[in-house]
Amino acid sequence: MTGRDGGADIAPIGNSPVVILVRPQLADNIGACARAMANGGLFHLRLVAPRDGWPQEKAWRNSSGADRILDEVTLFASVTESVADLHHVFATCPRPRHVIKPVLTARGAAAELHEICARDLRAGVLFGPERAGLDNDDMAAADALVRFPLNPAFMSLNLAQAVMVLAYEWWTAIDDTPPRLLMTNETSIATKAELENFLVHLVDQLDACGFLRNLPKRPGMVRNIRHFFQRGEVTVQELRTLHGIVTELAIGRRQMGRLEESAPLD
Amino acid sequence: MTGRDGGADIAPIGNSPVVILVRPQLADNIGACARAMANGGLFHLRLVAPRDGWPQEKAWRNSSGADRILDEVTLFASVTESVADLHHVFATCPRPRHVIKPVLTARGAAAELHEICARDLRAGVLFGPERAGLDNDDMAAADALVRFPLNPAFMSLNLAQAVMVLAYEWWTAIDDTPPRLLMTNETSIATKAELENFLVHLVDQLDACGFLRNLPKRPGMVRNIRHFFQRGEVTVQELRTLHGIVTELAIGRRQMGRLEESAPLD
Repeated sequence: MTGRDGGADIAPIGNSPVVILVRPQLADNIGACARAMANGGLFHLRLVAPRDGWPQEKAWRNSSGADRILDEVTLFASVTESVADLHHVFATCPRPRHVIKPVLTARGAAAELHEICARDLRAGVLFGPERAGLDNDDMAAADALVRFPLNPAFMSLNLAQAVMVLAYEWWTAIDDTPPRLLMTNETSIATKAELENFLVHLVDQLDACGFLRNLPKRPGMVRNIRHFFQRGEVTVQELRTLHGIVTELAIGRRQMGRLEESAPLD
Repeated sequence: MTGRDGGADIAPIGNSPVVILVRPQLADNIGACARAMANGGLFHLRLVAPRDGWPQEKAWRNSSGADRILDEVTLFASVTESVADLHHVFATCPRPRHVIKPVLTARGAAAELHEICARDLRAGVLFGPERAGLDNDDMAAADALVRFPLNPAFMSLNLAQAVMVLAYEWWTAIDDTPPRLLMTNETSIATKAELENFLVHLVDQLDACGFLRNLPKRPGMVRNIRHFFQRGEVTVQELRTLHGIVTELAIGRRQMGRLEESAPLD
């Protein structure tokens, strides 16, 4: 998708959870995580013992402009230190075993993170290293685990994709965009009277051209045409275009008729 | 997250929508898209005029084992040809302008795609090239647009991230994992009687050691302890551990007491 935006406007939005990458291996991925965080309105990024040290220029190159998130990264030597000032910690974990712990879906985690942040408490989410994921001690530091519902036949989830899903759920948890909306831009949805006005115009012209000349079938044909145009919302602009189409086709036909009349018959 | 799974088990799951990458630029991204599709249970991938041709080995290297999806890619010269056998087409578009078209959220699109597929119709979703996104003609080929609710201050969404969000919504639309669940593994959640049994043991030992010797304060202290242990679900295994801790601490104290008693006082 298009990447025309710079990241100049990125800033913390209210009290939002900290993303904590534990022993991340690839700077590319750290950059991609920052980008995903920016997409979902997260800002605070902490790194625990990144394999190749920090800062790494590659991260900035792969963040597509989410520079401010990387500029403000804080670095820790251990998970314990990275969560010391937080009140709640969640740990992402694709398939927890032999652990007694609440397990949240990504959507459930996002909802709880909003509740925690709304109470002015500080929350963080741990993401494990690319290859092995979080270890058992990391998970013991968390209040709850987060397991994304995904295809059990293919659980290999890229680190930045995991951050993306969480950031996306964080954003959508308080987004109220309707699931379907007709975008009309400069125009508006036509009223039934405006649509009726067009249908009368259309049927008039269809009568004039003989399309409806079979009188026993005419009522059914008119109803079928009406059904088609009633199926979805039609805009005022589209009705204007449809009026124009019918008028022009009718004029074309009449001119053709005049041409035929004036043409020599032999 | 961990990537221990191979992709040997990847296969189409029922009637699922086709992902159509329109003029994709980077083979790396095509591989990452295949991986994201596998995560979300999507299988059918079509490419329209990929910039660097097809096949590209880089795609397989970056798919983390989602090889079967790449092996079965079909290639088209135009969007029109790529959607010819489909009944419904959605087009992802971060910020549609001057278009009169229904706009769906990712979640709304996933719900509608399930409805379409359940009717045995074939659906597809168009994703535009990395830099520019879909053009106006591409969008005119679609029934509806899909716009992910994301941070308007940072809309630059990586192609594979966009596919990930859609695949994730496709999967979760029919997933019924509860948002929060206590994972107990081999053990089970203790009943109130089992918890009471432990609390009686604890209070007995606290009486014995003198922790509750302030009789006016004793009822309140006991209640506070009860409140703490009632706060969340406790498992049978955790109760066994807690019984053990109390017993061992008590034994340690008694032994210490005996040692003190037997130790010379001067």
